Amino acid sequence: MQDILELAGVSRAAAVVDRLRGAQPADIVQQLNELDAAEAAEIVARLPLEKAADVFDHPDLAEPQTILAALRPAVAAEILDAMAADRLADLFRDMEEPPRERLLALLTREARAIIDALLVHPEGTAGSMMTTEFVSVPATWSVAETLRHIREVEGARETVYAIYVLDPITRRLQAAVSLRRLISGDPDALVGSVARFDQPVTVLPQADREEVARLISKYDLLAIPVVDEKNHVLGIVTVDDIIDTMIEVTTEDVHKFGGMEALDEPYTRIGFAEMLRKRAGWLAILFLSEMLTASAMQHFEDELEKAVVLTLFIPLIMSSGGNSGSQATSLIIRALALGELKLSDWWRVALREIPTGLALGGFLGVIGVARIAVWQEAGIFDYGPHWMLVALTVGLALVAIVTFGSLAGSMLPFALKRLGFDPASASAPFVATLVDVSGLVIYFSVALVVLSGTLL
Amino acid sequence: MQDILELAGVSRAAAVVDRLRGAQPADIVQQLNELDAAEAAEIVARLPLEKAADVFDHPDLAEPQTILAALRPAVAAEILDAMAADRLADLFRDMEEPPRERLLALLTREARAIIDALLVHPEGTAGSMMTTEFVSVPATWSVAETLRHIREVEGARETVYAIYVLDPITRRLQAAVSLRRLISGDPDALVGSVARFDQPVTVLPQADREEVARLISKYDLLAIPVVDEKNHVLGIVTVDDIIDTMIEVTTEDVHKFGGMEALDEPYTRIGFAEMLRKRAGWLAILFLSEMLTASAMQHFEDELEKAVVLTLFIPLIMSSGGNSGSQATSLIIRALALGELKLSDWWRVALREIPTGLALGGFLGVIGVARIAVWQEAGIFDYGPHWMLVALTVGLALVAIVTFGSLAGSMLPFALKRLGFDPASASAPFVATLVDVSGLVIYFSVALVVLSGTLL
Repeated sequence: MQDILELAGVSRAAAVVDRLRGAQPADIVQQLNELDAAEAAEIVARLPLEKAADVFDHPDLAEPQTILAALRPAVAAEILDAMAADRLADLFRDMEEPPRERLLALLTREARAIIDALLVHPEGTAGSMMTTEFVSVPATWSVAETLRHIREVEGARETVYAIYVLDPITRRLQAAVSLRRLISGDPDALVGSVARFDQPVTVLPQADREEVARLISKYDLLAIPVVDEKNHVLGIVTVDDIIDTMIEVTTEDVHKFGGMEALDEPYTRIGFAEMLRKRAGWLAILFLSEMLTASAMQHFEDELEKAVVLTLFIPLIMSSGGNSGSQATSLIIRALALGELKLSDWWRVALREIPTGLALGGFLGVIGVARIAVWQEAGIFDYGPHWMLVALTVGLALVAIVTFGSLAGSMLPFALKRLGFDPASASAPFVATLVDVSGLVIYFSVALVVLSGTLL
Repeated sequence: MQDILELAGVSRAAAVVDRLRGAQPADIVQQLNELDAAEAAEIVARLPLEKAADVFDHPDLAEPQTILAALRPAVAAEILDAMAADRLADLFRDMEEPPRERLLALLTREARAIIDALLVHPEGTAGSMMTTEFVSVPATWSVAETLRHIREVEGARETVYAIYVLDPITRRLQAAVSLRRLISGDPDALVGSVARFDQPVTVLPQADREEVARLISKYDLLAIPVVDEKNHVLGIVTVDDIIDTMIEVTTEDVHKFGGMEALDEPYTRIGFAEMLRKRAGWLAILFLSEMLTASAMQHFEDELEKAVVLTLFIPLIMSSGGNSGSQATSLIIRALALGELKLSDWWRVALREIPTGLALGGFLGVIGVARIAVWQEAGIFDYGPHWMLVALTVGLALVAIVTFGSLAGSMLPFALKRLGFDPASASAPFVATLVDVSGLVIYFSVALVVLSGTLL
């Protein structure tokens, strides 16, 4: 009975594999992610080796380590050997013991050396994203020789569309040529002659991944060479890795802008405790800072007792400051990320945000005054005999607080960047908290001036 | 004298052009953007035609229309003819009269027909991003024939790395093959034999640009074919266009999440009036909604008069709800954008956010109660004889409001998506406003229960 069941399992797996033979790796990954590791391993073991390696090269595969650990060591070793060097390094970077040592032992000596070299680079740098599987040829080769070489190594290279031409003696990078230029070029010409540009665009291994993305996007590259100070090519970062990086960075930035630590995993997969941890930290910091509002209000307790009418507008006025601040912060975070603004541009931005804040604050102030006047005159609510002065206080406070919000919101990303933090940490809640505390002080100060002698 | 000056100008321009001959288009664009249109036109006119077309193909060129209008018509016509079809369509899509008609007249009849076909597709769709300059061959061709064809057309195609194999009679798409596979394949084999996958990944012209980006990223494509319902290839979208799109979409999403309309232009280049317009709209909507807080407080006026001590914690409690809501919104916006969550998953998220909110609210509640107790016992501030009940009110209200914030913040993107809006419109200020109004009602309701018979 057991045998028959097993047999049924085997033939089912075989049927699945048959369907997957011509499928895209991304689609196979999606199906494997829905199985447990043992089932997934059964499928993977039956895939052609090249396909299996493609599956493990795909960044969306949920538990590559567990599946590898569930495979027969010989099969796992073959797959590891066929994987792209950069993905292999990523795999071991994230891996925990026990499987780590056992899987490392399956690697060839060369693969181990390559991985060790890649793992030196800190996560998030060009060095940590690069792969060593690129095509390079000496400048003395002809176009035809280069094409012959590409045909031979095609299967073992991450991309063959960018070819790096090296000085035959120093092995320094001289030029980058594209396959399209090569195949339409004169076969007898030197390989460097089909280069379109004087200087290949390169990046140092310690460059941030966002800088790599910026360069690939700016120069429309399919791959960028990572070089050392002497212009030796250490590896390349390809455009598909950059797209994955951009998606990851965007997610992190949105999470941070929402006022939390960025999740490393999809919302659907992260554990409850981890989720709490990522959210509780910033929530507590913001809460402790916001406690200053209670202190500020305690300071104005006498005024509050005398003019309870003022409390009615506290949330309205404070939130307006936070909203204008959040707008300004979102603008500046992106402008800094895109390189449209530099740190030294802060005063230019300040000079722009002050009139913007005054105009927006004036606009809201007029609405606010009108609201109070209409409610009063229509008899909806009685703001007391001095309602005109109360309206004036609200209007003036709105101008001041919206201006302050725009200014504070736009300066916060600069300040964070200056202090060495990520400007994207200037979250909307962070700005709102900053503006709330100062907003209260501004509101009561305006009230003291306008209402002194009447309500206060 | 005039002549000599002109001569100096000419020789200076010639020297500049000499330097630019081997430069990357992106770097030339950067330099041109710092000149006025007449100066830029002078440089462009001296560049080799291919280079000039590359410059106009670059999306960062600030004022392509003005520069084209400043060129001699013959030169402008040559450049327009050499440009990529998708960029040409973008150019005319954005162009205003007068130059539009004049430049359109410079196009060849074929170019006009192609542009007219591309301009049919609404902005932001796959159809509007595609170019018609792709390589396609009938399935009856051999690998060698295909390579010969690629060599001939290389200069006039946006990419030659993806080749589309069509049914020789119906011209429907059968397979996509890569140049790398072709050059290492058997020259006499049929072109389709080197295809790696059963089904080419395709997209319909009406697909959203974010869907195009998702597919290119998921399947690691260099280009994706845009096909009609009958699987005829209409054009392709290339990976470099997608990267530009992703950057644009991210900027728009951050702006929206910051609570404003997305800017179409860099912060540094947008006009003052346009900037006000983009910010004032949402600011006013949020302000009008937030006015409900004033109404809510008016409703609880009696309670406020009796227990001024309650007002001290209003900003603290309300902002905590807004912050937890902003966190939840940022999580869900990204999870929806990445396809990790579908509309039908809303209840799964709700079931997750409620315990998360309770835990986070409990955590903040404990801090809040401790704060009041410490201030009271240390004699920093006197919250009155019923300070313990006040502390209990604050603690319970925090639990309720943070839970409500997490729930509302996570459901808002779903609700917007359900109603056909962009879930990214669920901005942090939007959520904060939503939670502020309800937060006040929750706070006073809790107070009425806890403090009834003592303070209230």
